[in-house]
Amino acid sequence: MLGLDPDPAALWPQSGGPAQAAGTPADAAARAILAHCRALIDATAQACVAVKLQLARFEVLGAGGWPVMDELAAHARSLGLLVIADGKRGDIDVSAEAYACALVGGLDTPFGRIDGLGADLVTVNPLMGRDAVEPFVTAARRSGGGVLALVRTSNSGAADIEDLELAGGGTVWERIAAIVDELGRPAVGEAGLSDVGAVVGATEPRHLTRARELMGNAIFLLPGVGAQGGRVEDLAPAFAPGRAGGLVTASRSIANAHLRAGGEPARAAREEAERLRGATWALADRVLGR
Amino acid sequence: MLGLDPDPAALWPQSGGPAQAAGTPADAAARAILAHCRALIDATAQACVAVKLQLARFEVLGAGGWPVMDELAAHARSLGLLVIADGKRGDIDVSAEAYACALVGGLDTPFGRIDGLGADLVTVNPLMGRDAVEPFVTAARRSGGGVLALVRTSNSGAADIEDLELAGGGTVWERIAAIVDELGRPAVGEAGLSDVGAVVGATEPRHLTRARELMGNAIFLLPGVGAQGGRVEDLAPAFAPGRAGGLVTASRSIANAHLRAGGEPARAAREEAERLRGATWALADRVLGR
Repeated sequence: MLGLDPDPAALWPQSGGPAQAAGTPADAAARAILAHCRALIDATAQACVAVKLQLARFEVLGAGGWPVMDELAAHARSLGLLVIADGKRGDIDVSAEAYACALVGGLDTPFGRIDGLGADLVTVNPLMGRDAVEPFVTAARRSGGGVLALVRTSNSGAADIEDLELAGGGTVWERIAAIVDELGRPAVGEAGLSDVGAVVGATEPRHLTRARELMGNAIFLLPGVGAQGGRVEDLAPAFAPGRAGGLVTASRSIANAHLRAGGEPARAAREEAERLRGATWALADRVLGR
Repeated sequence: MLGLDPDPAALWPQSGGPAQAAGTPADAAARAILAHCRALIDATAQACVAVKLQLARFEVLGAGGWPVMDELAAHARSLGLLVIADGKRGDIDVSAEAYACALVGGLDTPFGRIDGLGADLVTVNPLMGRDAVEPFVTAARRSGGGVLALVRTSNSGAADIEDLELAGGGTVWERIAAIVDELGRPAVGEAGLSDVGAVVGATEPRHLTRARELMGNAIFLLPGVGAQGGRVEDLAPAFAPGRAGGLVTASRSIANAHLRAGGEPARAAREEAERLRGATWALADRVLGR
């Protein structure tokens, strides 16, 4: 899966640099980021099942960020890709509902309906508990999408809170995993997968076996491959329920593949995406005994 | 403090209803929300020290949401009010930095500088650990602002994760409180307050004494008064370091005061904000022995 995490200081040359820029800095950066991300999608679509928008990189563009995300989501959908809104939102009832309307569904107002981003999957932060996650599950279930809750993340700080041992046994992240499993249970489909998945970092593969024990039906979003040091080969437990059990996401290692491999950025990105897909499917098929 | 949490279905009548609306539903809703929030700020500014923007309610407006927040933040600042961006963001390094640039600072790009929202304080979610919070602290410290980390929130789901007992003693939220205290220590000012504060719900006042023990220098943002059931009179421990030790925030109870009290919305909102301010200062002065 392609992560869209555009750094305005590291865009592909053909995206239009500052020399060609007109308008405000924000307008120029937004236009170049749109061109860069569209080219990335076009280069890798054949090797991907989804694109993941890192919302922070668009929010930082201010007013111009949302239209860029909207256009990229539409473009990805037109190529048959799923869209993941990676915003890690989490808040109390009415606020969580508003976020869910923004990212997954839409909002009916006295002024008419305001369409949301229309993402298929949305990442959420469960620190505030079940009632901060449920509005996202409800909205996603209504639209046929799903939710991916942070369970055990890929950053080193994950040890500070997520790994704390509980008096009742297990860790904080294992307790979150139990909530994910419970929230997803009413919607386990024929393929054995539910609509409440988990973000489980690829940087600590030792957690994956335990995570799969606790969440047998959850789709795992697996960040941390590539720039953060994780390796596809270590992710076997994710694929126990099937090929769709794990979504391997890479952002910088695809977008910046030409800096390592040389050559044209689009070609290097496609080759890196194809390499990741090949490694992922080979691993999944080995796990599944195919 | 005034919370801006605008529900497009419950705006003040003078904000311009659907009958007067032109343009897309999103444009019309954004215009009416801007008018509603400006009127709320104008009505209550004399009784408030800050406005808190609930980012979800603006994100749900799509592309039109950011300019409305930007204008409201500028308007609040022009009246001498602090601006709090309540987005509860939290993510890995580069993403947390992007959010911090969006909400607190600004981003220098090859296209020029993109200004952020310029908030004075920003709420963050610490589930992912210290390294998900530090970029916000760094950005806020640079601009003279501060960070408010979720510690013990006001929703009932807070019991699911935040209240879990740890094998090493204490709870998850108490461990987060220790991190807040530690992150803020390098920047405790003359008034005895640091630039890393805590969100501590007013709905469970029994936690406040313990929270104050663990975070002696933190500003407490105290949501949950009013619509969620919390009472100012129960918040004494927040004010131990001084009048500025606690920020009592109310959104719906101010915006919808006219539905209870009758009369003109702006007048009812001002009276409710003045009542809350009076109760807050009286409590703080009692705590401080003045």
